[in-house]
Amino acid sequence: MVGERLIYLPLGGAGEIGMNAYIYGYGRPGKERLLLVDLGVAFPDMESSPGVDVIVPDISWLVKNVDRLEGIVITHAHEDHIGALPHLWPMLKKPIYARKFTAAIGRLKFEEAGLPKDAITTVGARPAKTEIGPFTVQFLPVSHSIPESAMIIIDTPAGRIIHSADFKRDASPVVGEAWDEALMTEVAAEAPVKVFACDSTNVFSAHEGRSESTLAAPLTELIKNASGMVVATTFASNVARLKTLSEAATAADRTVCLLGRAMKRMVSVAQETGVLTDFPRTVSPEDAASIPRRNLMLLVTGSQGERRAASAALSRGKYLGMELREADTFLFSSKTIPGNERGVLKIMNALSEKGVEIVDDQGGKYHVSGHANRPDLEHAHRTFLPDMVIPMHGEHRHLREHMKLAHESGIASIVVTNGSMADITSDVPVIVEKVESGRAFLDGSVLVGAMDGVVRDRIRLALNGLVIVTLILDEDDAPLGEAWVETLGLPDVGKGNRSLTDTLEADLTEFLESAGPKVLSDDQKLDEAIKRVVRQVCVEEIGKKPEVIAVVSRLALD
Amino acid sequence: MVGERLIYLPLGGAGEIGMNAYIYGYGRPGKERLLLVDLGVAFPDMESSPGVDVIVPDISWLVKNVDRLEGIVITHAHEDHIGALPHLWPMLKKPIYARKFTAAIGRLKFEEAGLPKDAITTVGARPAKTEIGPFTVQFLPVSHSIPESAMIIIDTPAGRIIHSADFKRDASPVVGEAWDEALMTEVAAEAPVKVFACDSTNVFSAHEGRSESTLAAPLTELIKNASGMVVATTFASNVARLKTLSEAATAADRTVCLLGRAMKRMVSVAQETGVLTDFPRTVSPEDAASIPRRNLMLLVTGSQGERRAASAALSRGKYLGMELREADTFLFSSKTIPGNERGVLKIMNALSEKGVEIVDDQGGKYHVSGHANRPDLEHAHRTFLPDMVIPMHGEHRHLREHMKLAHESGIASIVVTNGSMADITSDVPVIVEKVESGRAFLDGSVLVGAMDGVVRDRIRLALNGLVIVTLILDEDDAPLGEAWVETLGLPDVGKGNRSLTDTLEADLTEFLESAGPKVLSDDQKLDEAIKRVVRQVCVEEIGKKPEVIAVVSRLALD
Repeated sequence: MVGERLIYLPLGGAGEIGMNAYIYGYGRPGKERLLLVDLGVAFPDMESSPGVDVIVPDISWLVKNVDRLEGIVITHAHEDHIGALPHLWPMLKKPIYARKFTAAIGRLKFEEAGLPKDAITTVGARPAKTEIGPFTVQFLPVSHSIPESAMIIIDTPAGRIIHSADFKRDASPVVGEAWDEALMTEVAAEAPVKVFACDSTNVFSAHEGRSESTLAAPLTELIKNASGMVVATTFASNVARLKTLSEAATAADRTVCLLGRAMKRMVSVAQETGVLTDFPRTVSPEDAASIPRRNLMLLVTGSQGERRAASAALSRGKYLGMELREADTFLFSSKTIPGNERGVLKIMNALSEKGVEIVDDQGGKYHVSGHANRPDLEHAHRTFLPDMVIPMHGEHRHLREHMKLAHESGIASIVVTNGSMADITSDVPVIVEKVESGRAFLDGSVLVGAMDGVVRDRIRLALNGLVIVTLILDEDDAPLGEAWVETLGLPDVGKGNRSLTDTLEADLTEFLESAGPKVLSDDQKLDEAIKRVVRQVCVEEIGKKPEVIAVVSRLALD
Repeated sequence: MVGERLIYLPLGGAGEIGMNAYIYGYGRPGKERLLLVDLGVAFPDMESSPGVDVIVPDISWLVKNVDRLEGIVITHAHEDHIGALPHLWPMLKKPIYARKFTAAIGRLKFEEAGLPKDAITTVGARPAKTEIGPFTVQFLPVSHSIPESAMIIIDTPAGRIIHSADFKRDASPVVGEAWDEALMTEVAAEAPVKVFACDSTNVFSAHEGRSESTLAAPLTELIKNASGMVVATTFASNVARLKTLSEAATAADRTVCLLGRAMKRMVSVAQETGVLTDFPRTVSPEDAASIPRRNLMLLVTGSQGERRAASAALSRGKYLGMELREADTFLFSSKTIPGNERGVLKIMNALSEKGVEIVDDQGGKYHVSGHANRPDLEHAHRTFLPDMVIPMHGEHRHLREHMKLAHESGIASIVVTNGSMADITSDVPVIVEKVESGRAFLDGSVLVGAMDGVVRDRIRLALNGLVIVTLILDEDDAPLGEAWVETLGLPDVGKGNRSLTDTLEADLTEFLESAGPKVLSDDQKLDEAIKRVVRQVCVEEIGKKPEVIAVVSRLALD
């Protein structure tokens, strides 16, 4: 083994919540054979990524080294773990391994993207083993807020890695496998754990996580006591919650209607793959129309305030024949992800205007997290007793706090952020290299680098507005007519109620009359001078410095 | 009194947290003499108001009826109560009344805006009375998170109104007046209260509010135990917190340095007006440089993540000679306002990268709210026993919940939102009219209506990007040369790595060659056709429908 090493290189997820993509490698430095665990997306926002469809990790490094990539493992079907696969796989074209439910979701995505579904291989849970290059991989079932989440046991010539993926310690998760203490102990006893790469998202949550099964009673009570129609929203992929909510509805003599494509898809895939059984009968929106309101519950998408999802649509008015009224109840069986507050509050206020009773998670009564809290992380550290803990999936503050938590238990740990390659061959991790990393934006159908300036230009337009100047010069560099000005995103009138375009055109005319041939004959000088005039006028008239585009056409008359 | 009525008309604050502006009127319908209470701003965000400086209430109705306006009362110096005064007062030009500290802040604003400072009259607290038209006004001191907040007692021929402004029930608020139970009882006993218009912001907070004075011990302990430099941020206007923090610093043998213009201004005005005494000595950033880190505490602006404030600057690197390092402590003695999470988290993560210990409010240990919680609201209702409670200052969900709370105590109440005029003459409020209302954006130096389309155009540019087409036609409507395309905020290359502008120009050329005279001679048809070609090409090449501006110049050669 001399000369060979084990490496860990996150390209996404180690510096944010979302966009997970972790590489493990084994071999001679620079020649390690590689395994990619997860390939997820992050979601755009107006502040940093307006108009962007989704954010994916910048995998330039992996693409350059794609010959060394042996395969891709997907831990579970959440978008931040699987979502980038259809967008980036065409650059990798390596076999993908996942459990049944996850693989089914992946194949649906591949089908929609026109990609080969057979790139995805379904694998069984431990003790099933898959050889992927120098790695022997097992999927270790664990509870999370989606069925069939799995920790990945990666046995390598340099020792055992356990990659936690997203998990919680739930002994009765309603749908999917429980945290199985005996199984975990068995795994820990079987071989020493060198590296435990572990979910950090809930490291700041001080109390032990609560089980999904604790929600049934309060939800049932809430729904039983509601008078009008009940609408409940949660993550579409939280199949266990959908089941709990539906059973509570049934207990309250209500029929369930699912609204939102993502939710219907999740339920049907969960049923087809056998992970969801005994789900109450649902009706279509058309059939729901004939059911009395007090006997109906809608289960809808859009718990994060997404403008196009069912929750937002219902808050605005009629949607698929359904309309909310005074004394109906709307339940957020969810927690608002930081950054989504405005969208969620907008829905709540629109519902409030309709007189709808709004119920939120109320400090955990109607929602539990799918991630391991601080004491659960400590429990997992103690269970696996690894040489080192590598905190993953979290913003920098989460990773750092998780590192400190490991140190408190005397376990080696460092913060390894996206683009940092850690050598994990010995007992302590060491950063050995920085590689190109970051974010790419799927913008329409094109992938653009987050730093390419495309989206930055759009942000500037949003902040500053735009002035377009067109000017035609003849072959002697004399203006043919006057400059023509159009503005976009700027007030029509400025100081003293003067038209902004009139003032701009007048001042540009004045400038052109006084401009010498040196300026008029030089494209760059003329462009700069026009921009200067425009910005001066705008600062004076409207107190803003807009973006300026000057199009100068030089006419060669024949 | 027959034929006369008392009205309440919010133009801001009744539908949002922020932008407070409430009108009371007394007189014959349509001829009521008017009193304006507060004139505040709300803050922009990238989602709804990119590039906007501040948001102010649309006061068109008040401007139209300005002859009926007798005066303006400002309850306290928070931006959401006083901030719009310099922007909108020139349209009103009526006398302004405020207590000493508030008036001083107002005069500074007027001075900066070149407005007459003598428009602002300083008035004393109750029992001082001010006659403003048919209203006799008293400022009733009450605790809040800024000095000298006041409820407004408005005695009218139709009865007594108490306008709560922002308040909390704090018996020892460190700076400023306490909630004085005896005084409140006296006010209630003196004359029956017809209307209690009351702050709703914290109606969802179930527990009794805690006193500002409870923070001294934990803050002192935290700062004493810190090893490196300590930086604390809070709202600049929370003078009591600044005092508590500074005293804690002194107890920990640390000298205080204030960073941020707003904070220095608040402290100096508070000292000049006598509301702040015994504030520890502070040093300038220059002098701070020579003080050992363990003997220094910075008090800085930017607790809400504002990009240009001191907190953000310090998180990025050196600022005024100060730089944060490993083992320094950064305290958020504040709560993040919904919508500001991303900015605050960005700072936290940047600090985490520097190894700085980050301490946030930790569920109230290091921060208390300045508003009355649900039990405090109930207490205030019971104290004043009004005929009706009008919930004000809050989003719709707050107002509605507050109304329900009043109903629980058997008090008449309705939700009155911005632009709704309520007749409050009898024992129950009745909506009688809807008037023009909404938001206006201060955009640079120009006020634009939120619905004018100026900012909407900027949002579209941010989402969709822009294509500019310029084309010159001769006097026979024949293209002179080819169409010229520029793009902004769009990827350079689309499908198959083709240049987007090249493809656009080629397809436009093709279109122009085949276009008949009917299209080429008609400005509107040509414009539409060009836009159609551009959008088609863009959808095909980059999967986006951009904004398009076509500038067609028709050359009349002479």
